[in-house]
Amino acid sequence: MGTGKQPVIAAARSFSADAGENAVLARLRATRARTLALAASLSDADASAQSMPDASPAKWHLAHTSWFFETFVLRPHALGYHRFDPALDLLFNSYYESLGPRFTRAKRGLVTRPGLDVVRAYRAHVDEALDRAWDGFGIEALGLIELGIAHEEQHQELLLTDILHLFAENPLAPAVFAGACTLPFAGRDGVGVRSLPPPYTAPHRTPTQPSPQVGGLQEVSWIRRPGGIVRIGYHGPGFAFDAEGSAHDVSLQPYELADRLITNAEWEAFISDNGYARPLLWLSDGWAWVQREAIAQPLHWRDDGREFTLAGLRARDPDAPVAHVSYYEADAFATWAGARLPTETEWEAAAAEHDSHAGNQLDAAGPVAPRAGTGEMFGNCWQWTRSAFLPHPGYRAAAGAVGEYNGKFMSGQMVLKGGSCATPRGHMRASYRNFFPPSAGWQFTGLRLARDAA
Amino acid sequence: MGTGKQPVIAAARSFSADAGENAVLARLRATRARTLALAASLSDADASAQSMPDASPAKWHLAHTSWFFETFVLRPHALGYHRFDPALDLLFNSYYESLGPRFTRAKRGLVTRPGLDVVRAYRAHVDEALDRAWDGFGIEALGLIELGIAHEEQHQELLLTDILHLFAENPLAPAVFAGACTLPFAGRDGVGVRSLPPPYTAPHRTPTQPSPQVGGLQEVSWIRRPGGIVRIGYHGPGFAFDAEGSAHDVSLQPYELADRLITNAEWEAFISDNGYARPLLWLSDGWAWVQREAIAQPLHWRDDGREFTLAGLRARDPDAPVAHVSYYEADAFATWAGARLPTETEWEAAAAEHDSHAGNQLDAAGPVAPRAGTGEMFGNCWQWTRSAFLPHPGYRAAAGAVGEYNGKFMSGQMVLKGGSCATPRGHMRASYRNFFPPSAGWQFTGLRLARDAA
Amino acid sequence: MGTGKQPVIAAARSFSADAGENAVLARLRATRARTLALAASLSDADASAQSMPDASPAKWHLAHTSWFFETFVLRPHALGYHRFDPALDLLFNSYYESLGPRFTRAKRGLVTRPGLDVVRAYRAHVDEALDRAWDGFGIEALGLIELGIAHEEQHQELLLTDILHLFAENPLAPAVFAGACTLPFAGRDGVGVRSLPPPYTAPHRTPTQPSPQVGGLQEVSWIRRPGGIVRIGYHGPGFAFDAEGSAHDVSLQPYELADRLITNAEWEAFISDNGYARPLLWLSDGWAWVQREAIAQPLHWRDDGREFTLAGLRARDPDAPVAHVSYYEADAFATWAGARLPTETEWEAAAAEHDSHAGNQLDAAGPVAPRAGTGEMFGNCWQWTRSAFLPHPGYRAAAGAVGEYNGKFMSGQMVLKGGSCATPRGHMRASYRNFFPPSAGWQFTGLRLARDAA
Amino acid sequence: MGTGKQPVIAAARSFSADAGENAVLARLRATRARTLALAASLSDADASAQSMPDASPAKWHLAHTSWFFETFVLRPHALGYHRFDPALDLLFNSYYESLGPRFTRAKRGLVTRPGLDVVRAYRAHVDEALDRAWDGFGIEALGLIELGIAHEEQHQELLLTDILHLFAENPLAPAVFAGACTLPFAGRDGVGVRSLPPPYTAPHRTPTQPSPQVGGLQEVSWIRRPGGIVRIGYHGPGFAFDAEGSAHDVSLQPYELADRLITNAEWEAFISDNGYARPLLWLSDGWAWVQREAIAQPLHWRDDGREFTLAGLRARDPDAPVAHVSYYEADAFATWAGARLPTETEWEAAAAEHDSHAGNQLDAAGPVAPRAGTGEMFGNCWQWTRSAFLPHPGYRAAAGAVGEYNGKFMSGQMVLKGGSCATPRGHMRASYRNFFPPSAGWQFTGLRLARDAA
Repeated sequence: MGTGKQPVIAAARSFSADAGENAVLARLRATRARTLALAASLSDADASAQSMPDASPAKWHLAHTSWFFETFVLRPHALGYHRFDPALDLLFNSYYESLGPRFTRAKRGLVTRPGLDVVRAYRAHVDEALDRAWDGFGIEALGLIELGIAHEEQHQELLLTDILHLFAENPLAPAVFAGACTLPFAGRDGVGVRSLPPPYTAPHRTPTQPSPQVGGLQEVSWIRRPGGIVRIGYHGPGFAFDAEGSAHDVSLQPYELADRLITNAEWEAFISDNGYARPLLWLSDGWAWVQREAIAQPLHWRDDGREFTLAGLRARDPDAPVAHVSYYEADAFATWAGARLPTETEWEAAAAEHDSHAGNQLDAAGPVAPRAGTGEMFGNCWQWTRSAFLPHPGYRAAAGAVGEYNGKFMSGQMVLKGGSCATPRGHMRASYRNFFPPSAGWQFTGLRLARDAA
Repeated sequence: MGTGKQPVIAAARSFSADAGENAVLARLRATRARTLALAASLSDADASAQSMPDASPAKWHLAHTSWFFETFVLRPHALGYHRFDPALDLLFNSYYESLGPRFTRAKRGLVTRPGLDVVRAYRAHVDEALDRAWDGFGIEALGLIELGIAHEEQHQELLLTDILHLFAENPLAPAVFAGACTLPFAGRDGVGVRSLPPPYTAPHRTPTQPSPQVGGLQEVSWIRRPGGIVRIGYHGPGFAFDAEGSAHDVSLQPYELADRLITNAEWEAFISDNGYARPLLWLSDGWAWVQREAIAQPLHWRDDGREFTLAGLRARDPDAPVAHVSYYEADAFATWAGARLPTETEWEAAAAEHDSHAGNQLDAAGPVAPRAGTGEMFGNCWQWTRSAFLPHPGYRAAAGAVGEYNGKFMSGQMVLKGGSCATPRGHMRASYRNFFPPSAGWQFTGLRLARDAA
Repeated sequence: MGTGKQPVIAAARSFSADAGENAVLARLRATRARTLALAASLSDADASAQSMPDASPAKWHLAHTSWFFETFVLRPHALGYHRFDPALDLLFNSYYESLGPRFTRAKRGLVTRPGLDVVRAYRAHVDEALDRAWDGFGIEALGLIELGIAHEEQHQELLLTDILHLFAENPLAPAVFAGACTLPFAGRDGVGVRSLPPPYTAPHRTPTQPSPQVGGLQEVSWIRRPGGIVRIGYHGPGFAFDAEGSAHDVSLQPYELADRLITNAEWEAFISDNGYARPLLWLSDGWAWVQREAIAQPLHWRDDGREFTLAGLRARDPDAPVAHVSYYEADAFATWAGARLPTETEWEAAAAEHDSHAGNQLDAAGPVAPRAGTGEMFGNCWQWTRSAFLPHPGYRAAAGAVGEYNGKFMSGQMVLKGGSCATPRGHMRASYRNFFPPSAGWQFTGLRLARDAA
Repeated sequence: MGTGKQPVIAAARSFSADAGENAVLARLRATRARTLALAASLSDADASAQSMPDASPAKWHLAHTSWFFETFVLRPHALGYHRFDPALDLLFNSYYESLGPRFTRAKRGLVTRPGLDVVRAYRAHVDEALDRAWDGFGIEALGLIELGIAHEEQHQELLLTDILHLFAENPLAPAVFAGACTLPFAGRDGVGVRSLPPPYTAPHRTPTQPSPQVGGLQEVSWIRRPGGIVRIGYHGPGFAFDAEGSAHDVSLQPYELADRLITNAEWEAFISDNGYARPLLWLSDGWAWVQREAIAQPLHWRDDGREFTLAGLRARDPDAPVAHVSYYEADAFATWAGARLPTETEWEAAAAEHDSHAGNQLDAAGPVAPRAGTGEMFGNCWQWTRSAFLPHPGYRAAAGAVGEYNGKFMSGQMVLKGGSCATPRGHMRASYRNFFPPSAGWQFTGLRLARDAA
């Protein structure tokens, strides 16, 4: 199909006054460095491949985020800037509608040239130019840089999930981050092993630890929330994407929210109870999807009880939050559990009281994964809501190219909240609106149950 | 694809106390008679064909509505009822998930037996049994009969739009209702014409009347509506589908609603202004749809300025509301016009003050069509809203088979309000929620613009 | 997909001198009458439906064969002929390439008007005109009439196999020819049955007779044939399709041909031996087809041991020739049996000594089917050869419209020889070349084994 | 679709007695070295990508040919051989039917690990082992090595055409062999260019040289060939693939063969004469293909008059043979030209008198391309015949794994003869049978006309 999610090149509300220039520079450098670090273990081929139309090659993420700074910051705001190579516009801008008919998003994996080394050179070129021009940037440029940082943070998460999806297709199941692998090579003849370069990591041979059989949903504590008028949408002074606004009042009925995400063990109970084979649990479109694609477990789960992770194949932790489930799956699970998914509004009202920078979110490059823990509101897995991604009241697309496409994805997508283990720490807000089609599962997506208050 | 819209077998809230038994019987008989009248001009072949997976043969509508009364009213509530033929369950119930893998919805057009005459006999058999058993029906049966009436009214509209879609595929463009055709046969040799039976109607040769060129959107009057807390969803005493509840408060910001639907002339201006070729006007999924399906005008419009109607090919009335546009088209038009579609809530709050039984709605069988007129809130064309079809707060599916599937379509569909020229008069309510996928255009679907209040 | 087989509007070599005018007239009348008889039990809906893109509605066959005589005989050769209705050209000529883009072959089933009665009137109109003009026809017209007869005979076979395919899709499995059904209705309530019209036939309830388990291929007698130079292709004085020529010499190596077709019992042995699950038995394309379409038995076989026939569901006769197998299946069977399919040349050389009008071929309208018997070379089932349908040496397409498309199907199709139980008796010749894509199974297609001479 | 052509792992008839052991060793080393040289300019990403299901990554060709020697020669015939890595079997054997369902041929481009360096190490490991074990090889091993050499030569041609197809998808149109590029970088800013590594080659800016307008087919000399009995199929003492046998007599009618291939200029005349838009010129399947895929010129031709080659975008030489045309195109051209394609037999009979090692065939790695020239029977472009790829009389698949799949492609493919500029010199024979589906154009495929002798 191909409603590929496209990280939104969304307009900042405005440059946030409290973010000093130096703080922005430091964040810019840290962000740019982390993108490189996330891709450090990738070969030229790894970085060039595309596992499905909705994903992009790592190389594309590396280049496109640089193209963004070149196009929106350096060219208009850095006097005397020399472009790296104008031919790259064709490849790395994402306004693909206006390009020729042959170079479609689905074919990004065929662009093996320029190679990863050229793309790294492109990044260095842009970084150096940003540094050199820094002192001349005015308030408008700084606002765009803040937007560029947020934009690149979005691509960092996509880079991780896209590369995870790619490596999951490899029958040898190599790890993206091999340092996490401590097992010796086993079961191979002597000769070949020596010639293998470090990034070539064998699948783990850890015997599967079957999860303890559970009878169904384990104990959940429900947090009761009152109804009434609450204010929703971004209404702070700092940076936010335009789809988070405008702030507005909504009227809520009393409801209850689970105090934690659904776990792997609970998902196994759903499977054991034949959850994937009972049409009455599923939305009509979801049931058609399950049958057409022969879905029987979350993406990246394997039949032997393991799951494919950024560290390769691993035994599943029964207590960790389940990840890589689609909206269809999350909704069916909630129905099976006698509950429902929260609305965006319910979730956001509850989250307003929590620290959006806490929890299991991305700090440094490495094999991040959801972790069993304390049940923070943020982090670990994006949480599907039962709300479609539609404009907030008063929403206005930003003017000009940066805002050109803000609202174009407001069709056929569901809202996710809260960020994940792959979301750069600092990126998240209660009002943040992620969105994906209901069949998408390649992000770190999980669920938290809700129910009407008695 | 095939998320076929399925008229919901939805539970009544309850039997409405104010509808006396006799009134129900009268409505039942009138409804059953009208269904037959709608199909009166159809041949056995007309009634058996299926033009696309989302549509059903007329024969299927005729039989399925009878199967509904047989299954939910007669078998449980009419002592000694003899079934017409149990083999028909396989064909005419719509719980197709549990049937075998070969008889899919998409193949309904291949079931040429039983023929139209047998299906009519089935209807007569059921009608007679309902009449005979009437005096013994209790409150539960009457509630189910009221539900059956509403269910059959939904199928009346689908029967009309499905048969319109079928006839539109015929290169000879025959009229469904031929009485409307007054032109003589022209341009044929003498021999064949005499042998043509009455239902075989020649396409009109009326010279096309080009619509006056307009510069864009014609004058629209905007009705300003205040913000504040309004009560939404069904909260009356009578019948309603369960998805209309529960009633709940919403908080609205001030907004403005156009006093009429968009017209054919305005749509022609959109086309003249290259509306179908400008990606920036379209949602991302909508633009993909336009390109994949080569969409360049509303469904049933022809290049020669005519449109295909239930009365055959007709010159378009520039002042009549445009029909058969998809959500994607309606949204793009609104963007082009500098406005937006209303939300379901905005529409419903405004409509509460109008008579939902007024306007151009279906009374008797015939070649209904949107008409230029006075701008009633109801009738003429279903009005796309920018709201996804999702559960109202507190929504609960009804128990048992009749409620089995109520919520299963709450994914990937947009809400439409207001009814159309093909909606049986009396069926409509302000809280009524119709829904279709955003690409669907074979219903009488149009649009009314909205905008934020200044 | 859609390489729909199109009965070739092929040029006669010439009008066959030995066929007297009167004999041609008698054959014309008999042929036209038989077409009507084949469709006599069909309802308007039966005759209008199309079960797949490769098939055509019965109504289309009835009309197209009349259009042929109107277009190629009456209009050029019958002075003062009045056309039935020129609008029908759009529907019933098969030169669809030059028509508009919307009316494709795959949508023939949506043309419910004109109805079956109008098409019958069209036939009567053409028949009457042919009769009236008969005395004025010259040698050219008579040649075209002979071609028209052969053309209509081809469509008679397609009409039968297309309608069989349509009825096989009906979950109620009605019989095309109901007279063959002698079982009473069982298991139905009293009311409905009485109201069923005669053509509505219940599926048979005959208890399945399991075929005797066989260990594999039953005894086959091999007829040894010498090698050497043989003359192949049509070289007689009478009528033949142009693809049968030109006659030419081929050099054969000695070979052996089975004295009979493969039977149902032998095919069951192939299934029991896991034949559909062993990739090494299959051509690469055939294996992909088996997996993609989930093929596990011949078309029209049912899991309960019965098969769907023109007389409805019937127990399979273990000794009857297997029918409705594709080339892929026939080739896999031959490999499994340690043999191979014959080449067209091998088959034709052997058949030259047999009576091409003998065997189980179509005489009168009725529920024809392959029959256990004496092993004639002709009739029962078309026999797949391992030869592609390519031009004979010296082949030349006929001039003018009738020969326009003769060679256009010479790609991607395999040759079948010998005719079937649905081939009108008198139509067949040893040089006759039928052809279908290798996945086609809806004709009466079977196989005869061959092997190299030791 | 995906009937991917798979270079046949075909059994040698026998080890050819006249090829001395030393000669075989020399050919083995030269062949292995040339494969490496063909891939020398490829980056890791280049070698890992797959442009369509029918193509394979260069890395796969490099590894699979080594796996062949490891599996069929070293493991059974080299005592004490240590495997490089058994895990690679899963990736690099081509008996994919028996593998798990997830690793399909179409996903070879997602296997980014092992990388190109590991695959090169694998090759070195196998080469070294072959050298070390050489003195111990017996006649059976030598026969398999000869087969392995022929097998690797087939993959050399596929490697070149697959990588050409991949690079053609890159909007920057990089050259595979950049040494051929002598133009300076133009139109770029200074900064980026310096950082581009050598393999990153700019598209040529050579102004297009429009071909001289021709009125149609240029002068062709026809070589008349007598009819009679000729011996066809391999009947020499040396190596041949089993599908080339057995040798057998065929009877030919007199015919004429063009003395050269059709040129680019002649193909342009076909286009100018509207050849791609005239359905009567095309086979039915070919016309469907032209419309479905919007084909309007040969693969790799560009609208600006250039073509994409192994040396990047180049002006077309009007006198060079046209390449990259499918069978459908070749057949349509021949019809347009009033001629036809030769049969395999006609071609082979004529070619028997020519030197199959002469002409423009592959010697050393480099940007090979068809060249205007003297009209040799062999080389430049594979020549489509009008013969389907079906077994010769007496054909028998070789026993065991090497012969397992010899005949499985004998369905849906047409025979090509004569080799191309990408066929390793020495590989070709008059009896050699290449085959591809009729829509395939990514090989160097062209045509030579034939006609019946007057």
